[in-house]
Amino acid sequence: MSYLVDINCDMGESFGAYTMGRDEEILDYVTSANIACGFHAGDPSTMRKTVKLALEKNVGIGVHPGLQDLAGFGRRNIAISPKEAYDLVVYQIGALSSFVKAEGGRIQHVKPHGALFNMAAKDAELSEAIAEAVYNVDPGMILFGLSGSELVKAGKKVGLKTANEVFSDRTYQMDGSLTSRTESNALITNPEEAIKQVIRMVKEKQVMSVQGSDVTIQADTICIHGDGVTALDFAKNISATLKEADIAVEKIQDIL
Amino acid sequence: MSYLVDINCDMGESFGAYTMGRDEEILDYVTSANIACGFHAGDPSTMRKTVKLALEKNVGIGVHPGLQDLAGFGRRNIAISPKEAYDLVVYQIGALSSFVKAEGGRIQHVKPHGALFNMAAKDAELSEAIAEAVYNVDPGMILFGLSGSELVKAGKKVGLKTANEVFSDRTYQMDGSLTSRTESNALITNPEEAIKQVIRMVKEKQVMSVQGSDVTIQADTICIHGDGVTALDFAKNISATLKEADIAVEKIQDIL
Amino acid sequence: MSYLVDINCDMGESFGAYTMGRDEEILDYVTSANIACGFHAGDPSTMRKTVKLALEKNVGIGVHPGLQDLAGFGRRNIAISPKEAYDLVVYQIGALSSFVKAEGGRIQHVKPHGALFNMAAKDAELSEAIAEAVYNVDPGMILFGLSGSELVKAGKKVGLKTANEVFSDRTYQMDGSLTSRTESNALITNPEEAIKQVIRMVKEKQVMSVQGSDVTIQADTICIHGDGVTALDFAKNISATLKEADIAVEKIQDIL
Amino acid sequence: MSYLVDINCDMGESFGAYTMGRDEEILDYVTSANIACGFHAGDPSTMRKTVKLALEKNVGIGVHPGLQDLAGFGRRNIAISPKEAYDLVVYQIGALSSFVKAEGGRIQHVKPHGALFNMAAKDAELSEAIAEAVYNVDPGMILFGLSGSELVKAGKKVGLKTANEVFSDRTYQMDGSLTSRTESNALITNPEEAIKQVIRMVKEKQVMSVQGSDVTIQADTICIHGDGVTALDFAKNISATLKEADIAVEKIQDIL
Repeated sequence: MSYLVDINCDMGESFGAYTMGRDEEILDYVTSANIACGFHAGDPSTMRKTVKLALEKNVGIGVHPGLQDLAGFGRRNIAISPKEAYDLVVYQIGALSSFVKAEGGRIQHVKPHGALFNMAAKDAELSEAIAEAVYNVDPGMILFGLSGSELVKAGKKVGLKTANEVFSDRTYQMDGSLTSRTESNALITNPEEAIKQVIRMVKEKQVMSVQGSDVTIQADTICIHGDGVTALDFAKNISATLKEADIAVEKIQDIL
Repeated sequence: MSYLVDINCDMGESFGAYTMGRDEEILDYVTSANIACGFHAGDPSTMRKTVKLALEKNVGIGVHPGLQDLAGFGRRNIAISPKEAYDLVVYQIGALSSFVKAEGGRIQHVKPHGALFNMAAKDAELSEAIAEAVYNVDPGMILFGLSGSELVKAGKKVGLKTANEVFSDRTYQMDGSLTSRTESNALITNPEEAIKQVIRMVKEKQVMSVQGSDVTIQADTICIHGDGVTALDFAKNISATLKEADIAVEKIQDIL
Repeated sequence: MSYLVDINCDMGESFGAYTMGRDEEILDYVTSANIACGFHAGDPSTMRKTVKLALEKNVGIGVHPGLQDLAGFGRRNIAISPKEAYDLVVYQIGALSSFVKAEGGRIQHVKPHGALFNMAAKDAELSEAIAEAVYNVDPGMILFGLSGSELVKAGKKVGLKTANEVFSDRTYQMDGSLTSRTESNALITNPEEAIKQVIRMVKEKQVMSVQGSDVTIQADTICIHGDGVTALDFAKNISATLKEADIAVEKIQDIL
Repeated sequence: MSYLVDINCDMGESFGAYTMGRDEEILDYVTSANIACGFHAGDPSTMRKTVKLALEKNVGIGVHPGLQDLAGFGRRNIAISPKEAYDLVVYQIGALSSFVKAEGGRIQHVKPHGALFNMAAKDAELSEAIAEAVYNVDPGMILFGLSGSELVKAGKKVGLKTANEVFSDRTYQMDGSLTSRTESNALITNPEEAIKQVIRMVKEKQVMSVQGSDVTIQADTICIHGDGVTALDFAKNISATLKEADIAVEKIQDIL
């Protein structure tokens, strides 16, 4: 096919007696898995099981480091220093890597979670600390960031391969940033519209902003969600529809 | 010299705003450091700093995995399954290894902490899970266990190098186990007596039990404590006195 | 009706982004709710919502203190001292009471959760510490314990009203203790059999042990479970069937 | 004497094996104690002991609710919603109240800690949620806030007694806010100067800002710190010097 894109999904978010997501099924339709590391979600046992599943299904394994805020699922901004971000990321990369090593695999990428991802998108200093953490532990890992964000820039600067991430079900602002979830028009709820947006981003490198103007955007990897009742259907659907549109879905390490 | 022994000490037990131990000074007198990994003590920032210090002072770096019980400092038994132990140990080895890798060093050993160490000493199944965790992540790491314990046996069984640990300031029972801390005669408070016991364990492989009979014991590494007002003095003292007694203090990887 | 019994259920076990149980629906079929307090499950927001629901549905509100082990859902024994148990219970009673006070209600009872409940059942000293905690904060609260257990005895000794709890879906040993969940015959999976066992316990104060002999048992309150797919059906069913059997279901404060 | 002021200090910040502060000694020189509740610092056992000490020394007992961030000691801003703040405060008031009730005392005041205190000072909506939490649990409690802050305003609005807090060792901005700790001139390190600033705030209701102009300020209670090597000396000193300056130090409930 003429176009290539990766599909990534957050995984391994269960914690103790609490189950979240339908990881095993979703893994059949994505090429990269972002696995929680016990700070915002996940626990050692869930990490082991999720790593094993991802290896069995030949999905690229990603570290998904988050803020230390299980109560807030890592979605609340915490005013951490760049050095604290560095330490959080080094720690969580290691924790997941250890399970991957024990199971005989290797880490493909690192994608910060939730508030850490969003704060980094706009904060160069925070992003550089995160990128440095990734590089210092293993310069072969790919850093995921919001397309065009400070995090992607920081990754390149430090010498990492980077992947520009786009969202299928989120709307965009004129400056290429995501519409805040607090806005009523933040989400695209119509699956067909969501997939159409993705196809255009991949093929034309354009997305229509909520303001009505087109924005140039790079789409190396598409984020889809693994929770919610329609998640699995959407995952199947997007995977199939992209192929029909001449877009091959491959794991990011085979694209970059 | 004719005899060789390692001296190890728990380190990196500070947490957030809470400071514990005099790590920087103690590191001058020990050959191996057991660094807490955030479960019973320690945090990512403390781990980074402690790893750096240990590397600067050329001290062997050890993972010190504990139960997930910061409130109890990992000293309260928790009825975990062997699989849970496996997962806790894999996770914590990874977390510390990541800082060691980022700083350009390598892990020397793994020593379970507190209640995990004590439960493993007597529980073959738990010990095998721990030994398997260590082996699966990196078979080159040395496993520390109470001298003659199930943990040492499990380490050997799985194919790891093991280090038999003795305590300078604890008394022993006829069966070679430590006198429980709940007993009034559990501790040796006289430093000279403590060092004398150590010298005899190293040279003669014997220790006098509280019951009055000698017990055969293997002393590859001596545990000393880093907190308390006299810890630093004791550390200086034991290090010097051993040398006078023809016992060279070397890091465990150079002994085994 | 000639017989009276209370039906209690654990509630408010959701945590942050994690949902557990169908509290709102189950509350229609029980008379007492044991609300988690943030140690083994639950969080401040869930506590507020659950208290409010229970008040709206006129269900007796109970504090459900657990061990500080969210990762293990409070089901793993932790070797805490009686004084630690006292402190955990005082703390959690206060936390829940505060929401109850803010919503204009009052606490009916206290029922320890999971491992704390099970450890207390057999440990007089631990039970006395728990009973003392309840009494010192508010001697008007009713203490729930396993029927005939040390906890019930301790409650009486300290001057509290106590409720003997029986389980609808668990089998019993000759000595009146529950069959351990590690045994294959621990659970009664047939709902009709479960209800039959309850009716006999209430009316005849007898339960058939797995060994085949009858055991005398006091049934003041019946524990049912709120999670699992059949929980809601079972709750409806038991409530209706008891009434048909001439057993009125009332909240415990109206029975004792 | 002609003037009255309260002196308050943060207390009960130890956690598990970690000790912080010299509470027992400091309690001899303050009239109100802000006791940590287990979210940013403190634990159930420390709460019980600190409450007992404060009652013995006849010091006013305050709830010191903080953000759920033990790793950051509650000093890092977390983007919580007003409803989350409400829930955190209700929970922590209850937890401490329970120990106070068990020991036969009563709560005097509530003072939010660290980042929660600072965020509330400038955020009317957050402050109203906190004030409402305090009022709903017990309208007789006094709410402490930065002098002239949104928190004091919210407290008055909801119908609470409020105490305007000033800092002995911090410098002030022209608008009456504290100089940020990130500025080099944030702290007054000379004890005599610190006490002089306090005396002027109490007697003249004026403080010299770092910009050089006087600011009107209300000083109902003075915050001093309990950690650091000079804390105890400063506490003794300020208490004595205020008396010499015709300022009686009384607990806030006896002043308002």
